[in-house]
Amino acid sequence: MMTYPALIDDPKIPSDAKLRAKRMLTSCSGSSVGSYSDSLGLWTVREDVARFIERRDGISSAPENIFLSAGASEAIKSVLYLLSTGLAGDQRAGIMVPVPQYPLYSATNSEYNAYQINYYLDESRNWALNTNELERALNGAKGKCLPRAIVVINPGNPTGQVLSRESIEQVIRFAVDNRLVLLADEVYQFNIYHPDEHPWFSFKRVLHDMGPAYSQRLELASFMSCSKGFMGECGFRGGYCELVNFNPDVQAQLYKLLSARLCSPVLGQAMVGCFVNPPEKHEPSYDSYTSERDSILGQLKLKAEMMTKLLNSLPGMSCNVVQGAMYAFPRIHLPPRAVQAAEERGLKPDFFYCVQFLEEKGVCFVPGSGFGQADGTYHFRVTILPPVEKIKHVLECLKDFHTIFMAKYSDNECN
Amino acid sequence: MMTYPALIDDPKIPSDAKLRAKRMLTSCSGSSVGSYSDSLGLWTVREDVARFIERRDGISSAPENIFLSAGASEAIKSVLYLLSTGLAGDQRAGIMVPVPQYPLYSATNSEYNAYQINYYLDESRNWALNTNELERALNGAKGKCLPRAIVVINPGNPTGQVLSRESIEQVIRFAVDNRLVLLADEVYQFNIYHPDEHPWFSFKRVLHDMGPAYSQRLELASFMSCSKGFMGECGFRGGYCELVNFNPDVQAQLYKLLSARLCSPVLGQAMVGCFVNPPEKHEPSYDSYTSERDSILGQLKLKAEMMTKLLNSLPGMSCNVVQGAMYAFPRIHLPPRAVQAAEERGLKPDFFYCVQFLEEKGVCFVPGSGFGQADGTYHFRVTILPPVEKIKHVLECLKDFHTIFMAKYSDNECN
Repeated sequence: MMTYPALIDDPKIPSDAKLRAKRMLTSCSGSSVGSYSDSLGLWTVREDVARFIERRDGISSAPENIFLSAGASEAIKSVLYLLSTGLAGDQRAGIMVPVPQYPLYSATNSEYNAYQINYYLDESRNWALNTNELERALNGAKGKCLPRAIVVINPGNPTGQVLSRESIEQVIRFAVDNRLVLLADEVYQFNIYHPDEHPWFSFKRVLHDMGPAYSQRLELASFMSCSKGFMGECGFRGGYCELVNFNPDVQAQLYKLLSARLCSPVLGQAMVGCFVNPPEKHEPSYDSYTSERDSILGQLKLKAEMMTKLLNSLPGMSCNVVQGAMYAFPRIHLPPRAVQAAEERGLKPDFFYCVQFLEEKGVCFVPGSGFGQADGTYHFRVTILPPVEKIKHVLECLKDFHTIFMAKYSDNECN
Repeated sequence: MMTYPALIDDPKIPSDAKLRAKRMLTSCSGSSVGSYSDSLGLWTVREDVARFIERRDGISSAPENIFLSAGASEAIKSVLYLLSTGLAGDQRAGIMVPVPQYPLYSATNSEYNAYQINYYLDESRNWALNTNELERALNGAKGKCLPRAIVVINPGNPTGQVLSRESIEQVIRFAVDNRLVLLADEVYQFNIYHPDEHPWFSFKRVLHDMGPAYSQRLELASFMSCSKGFMGECGFRGGYCELVNFNPDVQAQLYKLLSARLCSPVLGQAMVGCFVNPPEKHEPSYDSYTSERDSILGQLKLKAEMMTKLLNSLPGMSCNVVQGAMYAFPRIHLPPRAVQAAEERGLKPDFFYCVQFLEEKGVCFVPGSGFGQADGTYHFRVTILPPVEKIKHVLECLKDFHTIFMAKYSDNECN
């Protein structure tokens, strides 16, 4: 067998990085990431995730309640599958989902024939959650399904809001009162741009602080991924889920379900191991790690601010503050004649707007109708990920396009 | 940002390996395996898979009909999901599955509430497939389900047989006559130990040779993986599926289904890219590649022969020739008193045998009941993967254990 250069001997790689790699390899069968891991993931990484959660929340976490997955998507789909299927007769599970929402949820509900209960986020209050709206949505679904779970995305995707502690408490009370499992999509927990005014709290932490009447009752599943944050390692498909207060028999069924796919990608697991166990202050990689992390997050913050500022400067457009995540989701106040023009072509008005922008400027925004939006409102999602210069260019293109588009369809135009 | 040593400059890595890596990276967004790929996989790899199939079968293959997956398991589960769900009312899809079979199929059928139609392989003819048995199984399921598909594992897992061309033709005729989709699990296609006496044929190749009455009618899905063969890179979760003759609308639905999970692990895709596009004769890696491949496959052949020989030398044990794959699946002719002793303990007799072996010798064989077996027959599965010395040791342990076990429970013993 041919031997390839041993990176372990390379002096350019910091010693703590080598130790981490060695430790990870030692936890793999045959010291190779080419081997299957346990179906729930490498024990070492599950332990590291538990320690990460403990440091983050200041409360205990057990590796037994954590499983690793091919990105957060696989974990979310597995938990939704557990909750949506196997009901008696033709009864359907009701899954409460925010609108606007990341379309994984609507696609999965449709795949598993779950009944989707839409609750609307309040755009006028920076996409806030509101208990009255949750009640309204749940009451409206009575008799149509067996409500089983509520999904919350915090920070929001595509909406970019960071939930206040009070909002989180309200959702928890609502879930407990209505015996709903809470799915907390917390994959953007590192992408918090105004931590002083809008700090991020984990659902687990807030749940704990609410005392045993809640903390011993709510069944909570929290999801995290190596695809977001400052890591952005999407192609490795690494993620984890922590289960809190799940009935052990139910949890065992979920774990059994996961075993059929053997294991999640082992290098994705290793990637999770890296972000939950970053270099410590005394370690040689610490400085390069923190400076790279802070530079990426700093740029994202800058771009989020730049984006909202320009979007809000355009007449007929308004955009909430991007407090977290990676997107702006501005509202386009389309003139009635633009709506009419779209409908004449059989297109949704936001799609009509985005397609014209794509055709004229070569830039693709995702129409709000892909995420859901209140009736009669129109949006698009735009990511803050590209480099500053590219975003500036895109916003210039948008300004040009938008001005002409709005003029064309405004009432005092005869075109 | 810190820069790490560039392997591309390392003179110890062959130039063709570098070119392959460069080509793969060029096909990734941002030249990084950390990016999402298209949900069906990197186009370059899908093209390489098509060329691989063309070289193997001598007939055309289109990358559009190939998708990449997290191991073969994900692809198999997706196709079974497509076929098993969405039927009207409480009708269940019937999926024909060999017995013994790799338990992914029974687990997935149970997960998707499909009706499993067991057809038995003929142990007395080296686990051959038999049309009469297929007919019997299908007739027995009439009125209980809507038969939709037949699964064939070739080479067999756990049974190690390689299907003859005639057997493959029979299954194809049966599938076409009964309008069944054929799922060909061909993940062990490189693990063929007696290619002269028992050559391996792909279902696609045989289908083509049967002429348009079949080749234009059978819907075929063939699965392959980087976890088997001589690669054994299970932890990367790389696999592919080729769809033949699928209705374009149905195929579009499957592809839509796959998009919810974003993409399969990109390094797993790269791993598939490596095995379908191996070094060619004029390239610098060719010699090391072929010698490593041939050494692994040669060892596996040796171990397969060693294993069956010793298993057949034990009284009360018989084992078919391991023609392919990675396992022996010997039958234990348990004395009635052993069966009785197991039943008194509430255990299945093969489980009883394997647990005692595990407890006494510390070696785990998988009981045949995990794979299914004809009533009143008992087996276990043992892998030929460990090194020769370890297999020798295990077989010594088995000989000791088996001799005492059989003596203990034979009729002329009073114990």
